[in-house]
Amino acid sequence: MSRTVYVNGEFLPEENAKISVFDRGFLFADAVYEVCPVLGGGIADADAHLARLARSLKELQFPDHYSASEYLPLLKTLVRNNKLEEGLIYIQVTRGTQDRDFNFPQNTDPSVVMFTQAKNVVDNPQVKTGISVVTVPDIRWQRCDIKTVGLLPACLAKAEATRQGANDAWMHDNDGNITEGSSNNAYIITGEGKLVTRHLSNAILHGITRVSVLKLVEQANLVLEERPFSIAEAENAAEAFSSSASSFVMPVTTINGNRISDGKPGSNTLKLRELCINAAIQSAATTQATTPGRVAKAHSA
Amino acid sequence: MSRTVYVNGEFLPEENAKISVFDRGFLFADAVYEVCPVLGGGIADADAHLARLARSLKELQFPDHYSASEYLPLLKTLVRNNKLEEGLIYIQVTRGTQDRDFNFPQNTDPSVVMFTQAKNVVDNPQVKTGISVVTVPDIRWQRCDIKTVGLLPACLAKAEATRQGANDAWMHDNDGNITEGSSNNAYIITGEGKLVTRHLSNAILHGITRVSVLKLVEQANLVLEERPFSIAEAENAAEAFSSSASSFVMPVTTINGNRISDGKPGSNTLKLRELCINAAIQSAATTQATTPGRVAKAHSA
Repeated sequence: MSRTVYVNGEFLPEENAKISVFDRGFLFADAVYEVCPVLGGGIADADAHLARLARSLKELQFPDHYSASEYLPLLKTLVRNNKLEEGLIYIQVTRGTQDRDFNFPQNTDPSVVMFTQAKNVVDNPQVKTGISVVTVPDIRWQRCDIKTVGLLPACLAKAEATRQGANDAWMHDNDGNITEGSSNNAYIITGEGKLVTRHLSNAILHGITRVSVLKLVEQANLVLEERPFSIAEAENAAEAFSSSASSFVMPVTTINGNRISDGKPGSNTLKLRELCINAAIQSAATTQATTPGRVAKAHSA
Repeated sequence: MSRTVYVNGEFLPEENAKISVFDRGFLFADAVYEVCPVLGGGIADADAHLARLARSLKELQFPDHYSASEYLPLLKTLVRNNKLEEGLIYIQVTRGTQDRDFNFPQNTDPSVVMFTQAKNVVDNPQVKTGISVVTVPDIRWQRCDIKTVGLLPACLAKAEATRQGANDAWMHDNDGNITEGSSNNAYIITGEGKLVTRHLSNAILHGITRVSVLKLVEQANLVLEERPFSIAEAENAAEAFSSSASSFVMPVTTINGNRISDGKPGSNTLKLRELCINAAIQSAATTQATTPGRVAKAHSA
């Protein structure tokens, strides 16, 4: 069955979900996005994602348009229309449509697109084995803190991982320190129980799941160190993982062909994953879009 | 009257020229483009632009699809359908449409979009006065030699120029050397008749108009130096200009508020512009898409 996709005020079958070729999202990657986990029909961390969306728009000098309070009902409607219980919801906002010109348009309404993806985000089979990553140079622009759709460097990093037979890529700066994963934040745990992840700056995305993970450090009996860590440190870590809205906490068990400890997902990592998912489930419950009753009602209407 | 736009095999009125929101050009800026000047109904430097397009696609591991010989008839048809005598023709190729996933799709046809823009590219009023530029840090990715649609940093540079009351921005690297303009290559001419422009590397676009300009150096009695030049050198140059397919050679008469020489377009610059336009007109004549007779015929049909 075809998904329902939101495009500029309309809920459309996905095959009709189209935008103008003059949309600045298409011509200039002049657009930002968010991805939220959907659990039990509720949207996890919706407020945090919408706050970050607002920040991205502000950093790029978008005109004010929707506020978070206006997005949330649309997101809920879309989850409900698609009867989505578990998966992701994607939001993209572009600077709108005008004839091609590098200059920002003056009076153009932003375009808004939202769609869902059904997916087992909790029972992800990769968690059992962990994933393998390779390191690649970080060739992205200098404002990776803004969540733009300029994702080609990330796609190329992922393609390089695939070419090398790995699941994902971690990017490193010119000093050989890891910045982040292709579409996730990167972490190691040392033998002394220190959780190390790069400090916030323009070099990395300020992950919403990263915030959740960092809140859980004490509960997991770890000590936090926000600082750059090197490729060698990562390869020799006791545990390693990445975090994102679509994977929560994902164990990394091989880096550049080197097994991390015994090559199995680390116990601290799995503990953090469990805590993180529990927190997401709780958050999602407060932003419930579907209930069995409501879905049935919508169905019989 | 509405333009005719080419989208994936169809010639459509511009209001119907749409692509899927799942197109990777829209979601990931996973797309490349070219802009060719149209003069007298012919397409200038078509072969060089199509060769660069092929190179961009190859660098990004796109599957083979159209070859240059297949694009050219489509471009000509579009120019003819739009009765375009002078302006630009734009080509964008994306990796195609699939549900959102960073991994490159395996069996997806690239999307192809082409449209025209009517514009006085020869009698550009800015040439008389020259333009003002400001310098801004170059924050782009490290493969600026690939002509991707990841143009948000360029748009931001242009917006910063506008904010400062200037016409354009020249970008500089961490060493304070100019890389290139927001959407053009950058040049200075010294008092000793040296034409200085940054050498080719991954840091700049390998401009087709840059090739034309460099071919004309001797004819303009100048000596070429391909090397980095600093902001201070630019501010104190005898002449300055930028080059692009849409502006050919554009005199720059103010840099960061500093007048270049007497603040009027330089004589060498104007000579290069004349030579460059003549070369483009000659090139366009070999790729004629419209003739008065043909247009009249198309009209009466």
